[in-house]
Amino acid sequence: MIETELGNLRRSHYSDDIESSMDGDQVTVMGWVLTVRGHGNISFVTITDKNGEIPIVAKKGDCPDDVREKLSSLKAHSSIAVSGKIKASEKSPKGFEIIPTDLRVFSEVEKIPPFEPLAKTVKNIDTRLEVRPIDLRRKPLQHIFNVRSQVLKSIRDYFTGQNFVEINTPKMIATATEGGAALFPIFYYNKEAFLAQSPQLYKEQLTMSFEKVFEIAPIFRAEPSRTNRHLAEAISIDLEEAFVDYNDVMSRIEEIIKISIHTVNDYAKNNKDVEFIIPEIPENIPRYSYDELIEKMQKAGAKTEWGDDLYPSNLKKIGLEGFYFIKDWPLGPKPFYVKDSKSNPKISESFDLMFGDLELSSGSTRIEKRDELEERMKNKGMKTDAFEYHLGAFDYGVPPHAGCGIGLERLIMALTGTENIRDVSFYPRDVDRLSP
Amino acid sequence: MIETELGNLRRSHYSDDIESSMDGDQVTVMGWVLTVRGHGNISFVTITDKNGEIPIVAKKGDCPDDVREKLSSLKAHSSIAVSGKIKASEKSPKGFEIIPTDLRVFSEVEKIPPFEPLAKTVKNIDTRLEVRPIDLRRKPLQHIFNVRSQVLKSIRDYFTGQNFVEINTPKMIATATEGGAALFPIFYYNKEAFLAQSPQLYKEQLTMSFEKVFEIAPIFRAEPSRTNRHLAEAISIDLEEAFVDYNDVMSRIEEIIKISIHTVNDYAKNNKDVEFIIPEIPENIPRYSYDELIEKMQKAGAKTEWGDDLYPSNLKKIGLEGFYFIKDWPLGPKPFYVKDSKSNPKISESFDLMFGDLELSSGSTRIEKRDELEERMKNKGMKTDAFEYHLGAFDYGVPPHAGCGIGLERLIMALTGTENIRDVSFYPRDVDRLSP
Repeated sequence: MIETELGNLRRSHYSDDIESSMDGDQVTVMGWVLTVRGHGNISFVTITDKNGEIPIVAKKGDCPDDVREKLSSLKAHSSIAVSGKIKASEKSPKGFEIIPTDLRVFSEVEKIPPFEPLAKTVKNIDTRLEVRPIDLRRKPLQHIFNVRSQVLKSIRDYFTGQNFVEINTPKMIATATEGGAALFPIFYYNKEAFLAQSPQLYKEQLTMSFEKVFEIAPIFRAEPSRTNRHLAEAISIDLEEAFVDYNDVMSRIEEIIKISIHTVNDYAKNNKDVEFIIPEIPENIPRYSYDELIEKMQKAGAKTEWGDDLYPSNLKKIGLEGFYFIKDWPLGPKPFYVKDSKSNPKISESFDLMFGDLELSSGSTRIEKRDELEERMKNKGMKTDAFEYHLGAFDYGVPPHAGCGIGLERLIMALTGTENIRDVSFYPRDVDRLSP
Repeated sequence: MIETELGNLRRSHYSDDIESSMDGDQVTVMGWVLTVRGHGNISFVTITDKNGEIPIVAKKGDCPDDVREKLSSLKAHSSIAVSGKIKASEKSPKGFEIIPTDLRVFSEVEKIPPFEPLAKTVKNIDTRLEVRPIDLRRKPLQHIFNVRSQVLKSIRDYFTGQNFVEINTPKMIATATEGGAALFPIFYYNKEAFLAQSPQLYKEQLTMSFEKVFEIAPIFRAEPSRTNRHLAEAISIDLEEAFVDYNDVMSRIEEIIKISIHTVNDYAKNNKDVEFIIPEIPENIPRYSYDELIEKMQKAGAKTEWGDDLYPSNLKKIGLEGFYFIKDWPLGPKPFYVKDSKSNPKISESFDLMFGDLELSSGSTRIEKRDELEERMKNKGMKTDAFEYHLGAFDYGVPPHAGCGIGLERLIMALTGTENIRDVSFYPRDVDRLSP
């Protein structure tokens, strides 16, 4: 057996595995140094691991001198292992402390980080993003990303419970899906290609064979916007389903929202220091038609007319908040694959899911017939030739289908009350930022 | 309520919800036409839905003439809904048939597809890929992608059960991770950027804050290779863990392999027509050292010496098959972040997971100290300046850590006995193929 650098040294307990009833037990704990306070012959060190904090008390006489001296010299963030004995202690907020007998310093820190590890807020987000790996050690971000991971799990469990098939569609594509704006170009060997701004056409095609499909994957949009709600690279939760229309998709989203809020509530219950602003679980998510809202806005004195986009200021004017759908949008600005309404060709079988004035999702019934698709593309001035790889599928029996994409980052913003989308993305990308 | 094109028409039962005991019940089924056979006044139509097949028997007198006539005129792949009555029937392989009373044709097919929907094999893979959405209706591919979805679920369940946090790292990056070869360049607004060939540096950084992380996401490699095992875009199952070394990672992989084979076995049990070649569940996956294998190869008469790569022909020569690890590789060719061995600086704490001569995964203990990293980079002729966004993290206490990436497509090849990697990717991308 070849000896490794780490050797046999392993953590025996996480912070939350230890309790005062284990008084006298020998443990090995590992983590990073949160605070060091020395008072002459006694040093108090707190280390943080994945699950919480561990108080270490090194007192002259109780522990080897070299261990105590080394511990007291450590700076915040250093990565260490401490072996020692559990001592029940009423003075300790955790009910115990560790009396160290051995110490291993994996990575000793000499620099002072640009902000305190305990800081709840740091004013300049760019300062934080520049040292993102350390920023992510801060409790508020730990909670956001831990709960994000659990929300993803609960959404996937919903999909698999409903017999959806997980798909992966290509991110390098030959043609633009929705018209050509806001795409990142790539050199694909000797060809020009683009990064997919959505899995739209592929997920539609896959309803032919798998009927119910979902994908949770990155999408790429060369957004020129500098706002708190746009990213150049985001995670999209896409679903697409055969033999249903947009009403069924709205019902699925309703389920997903409920499940997600439950997950966040459970997380907050288990983590008392969480400071999320969690929305109420809606009994039903109201479904307003576009027409209805335009009329309300006009009555409320907004200068808007049929065909206009619904601006945040006008949505506020009519007091819309929490989760709600806006459905039956004018067909004109909708992408070529969105189905027009049977009863009024000027409107579409489409919806947006809103949270206040934040758009979380967009969905629709899609066209399943080739001639209708081609006509819509021509009306939009698109070249049908470039889409033959997609249109060709419609020669072989595409079922009626509908679907949506949900922006994961925006969903997490809504679920936790986070204001800047950069705080729900591990390494945000925007027009100004390509690093770290 | 605005009427939609689909209206109230919904599937009442999937194929596998129906059984002969339901004789006389009214149902609505939906799917695509697999076969149509007409014998004068009687038509036999089989439709396929997500879960299986449904026999429709339209006999003059038993069902409306227009329904029977329309049914008998349909071509394979057409997308339809049939409402009718269940009739128990001993002649039917399913034990029942549907006597139609109503029919709706969603998408009628006129073209003859380039291969039969029932075809088990189609010689030319390019013929199939050109019409991939229809190709994916074939049973062998249905099974591969259904089981792929279930394997993904079982692997994610393993990770969440082990308290790993799901991460998403950026796919658009400023610098090359492993040296610069085989990257796709992008135009990132007005800057040059690249598509990430692995989440390596980001997942390492995230062990500082979340300790145990995983990501299942696309990776991009501008492989010039035209083989049955390389793709330009693939799905990588990445894990990274703090306070462990490569031995622990190999143990995790062992668990993941066992769980995955269980999942495939369960799927095959529930789907009798599956023709996978499923590997045995290994009790342990053997861990051979590189040195040991070189020696064996030399004894077997192979012309190879210490420092050479281990070629497939030589691996075959010493009879290696099934799953096995090759560990303790020479350090020289390994990326800069791979830790050298404590007992021999010429070898590294690294491993590959093999299945026969197919490499499924590569992993290692990583370096956690900035000065060691910088030295390794300089020895490799890399510019450390360009990596300051990464090296900077090492000023603040990176824990010892180890991890690996597992190629999902290759794993599915191994689990199902699939020979061409293009058959385990929905829409494969390679040096010659950017479409569909």
